[in-house]
Amino acid sequence: MTTWQSPYPQRSTARQLGLTTGILPTGSRNDLTDVPGVRVGHATLVAGEGPLRPGAGPVRTGVTAILPHGGNLFQEKVPAGAFVLNGFGKAVGLAQLQELGTLETPVVLTNTLSVWHAADAVVTYMLAQNPEIGITTSTVNPVVGECNDSYLNDIQGRHVTAAMVHAALASADGGPVRQGAVGAGTGLVCFGFKGGIGSASRAVGPYTLGALVQANFGRRPSLMVAGRPVGQRLAAYPGPEGPEPEAVPSGSIMVVLATDAPLDSRQLTRLCRRGALGIGRVGGSAANGSGDFVLAFSTAQRVPNTAGGPTMAWRLLHDDAPEMDQLFLAAAEAVEEAILNALFTAVTVEGRDGHVAHGLPVQRVLETLKEG
Amino acid sequence: MTTWQSPYPQRSTARQLGLTTGILPTGSRNDLTDVPGVRVGHATLVAGEGPLRPGAGPVRTGVTAILPHGGNLFQEKVPAGAFVLNGFGKAVGLAQLQELGTLETPVVLTNTLSVWHAADAVVTYMLAQNPEIGITTSTVNPVVGECNDSYLNDIQGRHVTAAMVHAALASADGGPVRQGAVGAGTGLVCFGFKGGIGSASRAVGPYTLGALVQANFGRRPSLMVAGRPVGQRLAAYPGPEGPEPEAVPSGSIMVVLATDAPLDSRQLTRLCRRGALGIGRVGGSAANGSGDFVLAFSTAQRVPNTAGGPTMAWRLLHDDAPEMDQLFLAAAEAVEEAILNALFTAVTVEGRDGHVAHGLPVQRVLETLKEG
Amino acid sequence: MTTWQSPYPQRSTARQLGLTTGILPTGSRNDLTDVPGVRVGHATLVAGEGPLRPGAGPVRTGVTAILPHGGNLFQEKVPAGAFVLNGFGKAVGLAQLQELGTLETPVVLTNTLSVWHAADAVVTYMLAQNPEIGITTSTVNPVVGECNDSYLNDIQGRHVTAAMVHAALASADGGPVRQGAVGAGTGLVCFGFKGGIGSASRAVGPYTLGALVQANFGRRPSLMVAGRPVGQRLAAYPGPEGPEPEAVPSGSIMVVLATDAPLDSRQLTRLCRRGALGIGRVGGSAANGSGDFVLAFSTAQRVPNTAGGPTMAWRLLHDDAPEMDQLFLAAAEAVEEAILNALFTAVTVEGRDGHVAHGLPVQRVLETLKEG
Amino acid sequence: MTTWQSPYPQRSTARQLGLTTGILPTGSRNDLTDVPGVRVGHATLVAGEGPLRPGAGPVRTGVTAILPHGGNLFQEKVPAGAFVLNGFGKAVGLAQLQELGTLETPVVLTNTLSVWHAADAVVTYMLAQNPEIGITTSTVNPVVGECNDSYLNDIQGRHVTAAMVHAALASADGGPVRQGAVGAGTGLVCFGFKGGIGSASRAVGPYTLGALVQANFGRRPSLMVAGRPVGQRLAAYPGPEGPEPEAVPSGSIMVVLATDAPLDSRQLTRLCRRGALGIGRVGGSAANGSGDFVLAFSTAQRVPNTAGGPTMAWRLLHDDAPEMDQLFLAAAEAVEEAILNALFTAVTVEGRDGHVAHGLPVQRVLETLKEG
Repeated sequence: MTTWQSPYPQRSTARQLGLTTGILPTGSRNDLTDVPGVRVGHATLVAGEGPLRPGAGPVRTGVTAILPHGGNLFQEKVPAGAFVLNGFGKAVGLAQLQELGTLETPVVLTNTLSVWHAADAVVTYMLAQNPEIGITTSTVNPVVGECNDSYLNDIQGRHVTAAMVHAALASADGGPVRQGAVGAGTGLVCFGFKGGIGSASRAVGPYTLGALVQANFGRRPSLMVAGRPVGQRLAAYPGPEGPEPEAVPSGSIMVVLATDAPLDSRQLTRLCRRGALGIGRVGGSAANGSGDFVLAFSTAQRVPNTAGGPTMAWRLLHDDAPEMDQLFLAAAEAVEEAILNALFTAVTVEGRDGHVAHGLPVQRVLETLKEG
Repeated sequence: MTTWQSPYPQRSTARQLGLTTGILPTGSRNDLTDVPGVRVGHATLVAGEGPLRPGAGPVRTGVTAILPHGGNLFQEKVPAGAFVLNGFGKAVGLAQLQELGTLETPVVLTNTLSVWHAADAVVTYMLAQNPEIGITTSTVNPVVGECNDSYLNDIQGRHVTAAMVHAALASADGGPVRQGAVGAGTGLVCFGFKGGIGSASRAVGPYTLGALVQANFGRRPSLMVAGRPVGQRLAAYPGPEGPEPEAVPSGSIMVVLATDAPLDSRQLTRLCRRGALGIGRVGGSAANGSGDFVLAFSTAQRVPNTAGGPTMAWRLLHDDAPEMDQLFLAAAEAVEEAILNALFTAVTVEGRDGHVAHGLPVQRVLETLKEG
Repeated sequence: MTTWQSPYPQRSTARQLGLTTGILPTGSRNDLTDVPGVRVGHATLVAGEGPLRPGAGPVRTGVTAILPHGGNLFQEKVPAGAFVLNGFGKAVGLAQLQELGTLETPVVLTNTLSVWHAADAVVTYMLAQNPEIGITTSTVNPVVGECNDSYLNDIQGRHVTAAMVHAALASADGGPVRQGAVGAGTGLVCFGFKGGIGSASRAVGPYTLGALVQANFGRRPSLMVAGRPVGQRLAAYPGPEGPEPEAVPSGSIMVVLATDAPLDSRQLTRLCRRGALGIGRVGGSAANGSGDFVLAFSTAQRVPNTAGGPTMAWRLLHDDAPEMDQLFLAAAEAVEEAILNALFTAVTVEGRDGHVAHGLPVQRVLETLKEG
Repeated sequence: MTTWQSPYPQRSTARQLGLTTGILPTGSRNDLTDVPGVRVGHATLVAGEGPLRPGAGPVRTGVTAILPHGGNLFQEKVPAGAFVLNGFGKAVGLAQLQELGTLETPVVLTNTLSVWHAADAVVTYMLAQNPEIGITTSTVNPVVGECNDSYLNDIQGRHVTAAMVHAALASADGGPVRQGAVGAGTGLVCFGFKGGIGSASRAVGPYTLGALVQANFGRRPSLMVAGRPVGQRLAAYPGPEGPEPEAVPSGSIMVVLATDAPLDSRQLTRLCRRGALGIGRVGGSAANGSGDFVLAFSTAQRVPNTAGGPTMAWRLLHDDAPEMDQLFLAAAEAVEEAILNALFTAVTVEGRDGHVAHGLPVQRVLETLKEG
């Protein structure tokens, strides 16, 4: 019986190594689950090595699940918004999320060709909790994002099963977010180094904003760390981290933002556009083949599936409140730091056909930052 | 001294003549100002006749102003949304309306090439009420729509002055909406007949939804009245209403929806998309050159310019409430009937170069409807 | 071995019964496959009767597949666009279609909770043709739409298998489009009558525009046929067609437009917005729970997956060409008539729990149209 | 007689002082007019000093005009796209630009409350070239952007006249772009320092991409220069550059991108989203009150106002061509460097009420960059 645990250790985050980016304070632990009630879980599948045999392996993939709260999400939806920086991606569920301004399932992340299996598995999970779905009430809208892990993984094999999705959901808790080569981050490559799951957060007055990224994008020469052209500097270093793999496909990034600030769908959509700026802060430029999606939800209020009466009471942050501008900056900063954390925490992983994604040479990065 | 009154009489509305469209009940008077607090005013300019002398005349144009409430709109904004069915138009102010989800000025309608003069005049009007704008507070976002009245009017002359805009605003009241060849409807052509301003409303439970259109679109063969291909039937009638003018430019339609239902910007945007379906119900198909815009606002709640505190209380209709579906249908129905009213109420107008836009031959239309 | 044939006969289309709507001429056969090269196929699954046993049946569902051409769609993509009239739906693949402006798989339609299984099955189909996908080239973006057939079907059972999807794809041809209670239309309800698949087309100069709808929307009182309030008139007829089922969930409509006019993604998106007006012409108003999506593609030109050089030659219809306005009108007309055809051609179907969707009482409809 | 020349000198650009950002090579002169055929002109109005007397002065404002080519833009339109990062702004003309995918006038930039006067003046300019507009052909769609210069300028006075707009248009040439406190940049503040007009460019294979910004956004603590938190470091330096003015309103940024790569409207819109990432690279986060708009046009092909035939031949860059990814990166880099150039080139300006916007202390910035 598998435990779906990642065999790859997690390294330290950027901030744990003394690298501070941005000007706002972090949340309590500097990750997505700093937002009260939010839960994150992973299921990781690592199997086989050697040449690619499509359908058989090797497998380097997984699932990451994010739950806005611990209750029944279909019955108690949360306000949500989305922004598509570059739509070359297969994320499902956005049209309904944007139309109704709500999220009614967990957000699940996985690999590109497993996104539909994962969505179906989310439906199974929701049906178990809400057997009336599609019989006496409306259907349910799973939200699943993805990145292409085919440089390391047998992506054609679509090895993500319903059991894996359910395991990721079942394992979700509000503890520290496991980052790096784990869950949906297992097989990713980012700026020519090992990518994966990263997270960060910011405190804004009484509110917290958290970001979790599935980072799989960028070419090495573009990488900026704390504003320095680290990608260019590392290109000049020969060494064990190796050159950027030429065969890496155009990657992608999925960003999930959570906050306990009382925002509605329009405001959360605004937040998503600022989250995209964080991609720019590390040197990303949304290459043609990079599916770059940003989602956001608020835990401050819930939208009942069945209206008790025709109207609902809301409390919303005023767009002109100082906290709004701070949340906008927080979104950009948290995404930037979450991407760095994906790079800092992920270890080297070898996958199909001997492809190796080297972990970012963190000490060299920190040394080069001292150079100016 | 001009009175800015239209010299053209208003004929009866479709319903006054016994023609009922749609299945929902109308509001109290079947026009936009059935929504409590909403005000409408017009200023009409008719001057000269004969050959077009660009810059001199003849002039057949005007301004129509819609005020969501009688207070200070900059200080007490209203939630608003918009949908662009076809963006071949010069409407101003939509980007901010959509970003912030609010309307902070009256909506003003005029001719295509006068839209910027009119917008500037709205700013002057707002500055008079709010002298701190642009000094100690943010600037102001006028919302102005337009239709091309150049078949009858010297549009290059840009004869709409600030005085006309201010007169339309000053004349606005909550009484019956003057329709037909009046205000921004003075020089319009619709389905090859005289177009203009039309209005209608629907009652939905405790709520009212009203529509006002500036109707200037469509070719005669497409016209449908109560679903019958009236345009085709009238094409076969020779007679004093004359053929469709060939030189009529591609027209446009501006639609303004108002409701006292408690809707936010996302919901009002949904409402706008349904309003566009009303254009389809009369045979419209948004020709390439037809700028077709739909705006909507709610009078149920106001957004203060200066937040008293960081958050605001709201009350919103649940998307799943039965009233929502009724409001969606009401939007389609009210727009359909408002367009018919523009056609029914507008009399024949002769403009530049002997161009004549004939009033819809209402009796023939009613007779043909009896045929089936 | 199943044949996936529908057990339900197809009745005559509206036009075959003498009912003409719109003013433009039809294509050669008045359906989607009038557009040269376009293929349509269905797979229908009807099994069991009696009480609903979720996961077991009864089953009234299916798959409809639309192929823009008979070649390798991944290697030779077609320009495409989309418009979401109401996003309460689970259609997949739109973000990439809109970003890149191309369609690279068949469009598959099925039931709401089977959309992800179907998408995965499309991927399997594409991988078989293009084994390099996700290994040496980018991944593939399946486009799948859906309607909720749960009034008749055990939707929780997700009975649509990869075999069904592949059967629908394999059966696709350029012959007359089978309409009514077939394929993805098997379990649908529309305006309180039996809905399903409908199709129609229009000729515009040298070009053809075709529409195919999966029609599952609307309440009976709103139904308009050729502009008459037929829904209201039929509400007054007691009789064997029965009352509108109260338990019918909010429906949806998927619209697919095809044309051989040389349009690009921006222009096809414009076309989609006009297609939505056709929904308004039959009385639709996009109820809150109705996922209303419009897709369009052009067969005039193909976009290679692998660029032979950095640039490509295109030929595009000028936006200002008279044909463009005619295509816009054609989209509205073809969608209207396709919806009517879904209603006219679909026979009565009984499904789970004794639920019956009665076929539109066509003779009564035709008689009432004679009344005016 | 005024010359509309700026009385403020232009300082050196960042690159002239040895500061290189980004990894791509610049165009020949590193500004917008490196794109062949593109012309830029300015008109600057500086008058009065002392206390603000609304309507009278002091005046610190102007106009900047960008012409895609030297021909008749209405007759020979250029493909164009736009992206709204934050819609709290009054830019006019975007709806039609996005619908038709073309730009048919110069792009004019000015102050927030003069945008409508400027748009009307553009119409006058276009009518002079095309007297048939609005008589025998369609109307014209001016595109005008703006920033709020009210910290220094009497913005209520709306001092921008048609003569100024026409002077800016008449002065436009393909020579080096005058940057800093000039034209529409005269009264701007950016990151608490003097903002203004900045420009930069990148070479991508045979193509050039240029950016011009009207930079008026950001709070000092957020400023990043070459990735370093320069805003924070300068906050600690007391000195003649002074503290950040507290009364500065939320600013904005208008970005105009030009390229001679053969891109259509969809592709140019993609380019605009990448341009927005350049705002993130200098620390911008699109504050609530900051209207952040990005426009792009291509000079590679022209769209005739009057179609010679129904279709047009096009040549387009393939989305998957390597040049596309380089253009995307170029957009982010050129916007970053254009913003830095606005800051580097603008000198200290004193305006109304003794308000002073201090020029960026360039030497301190360069010194602090040496620190790391």
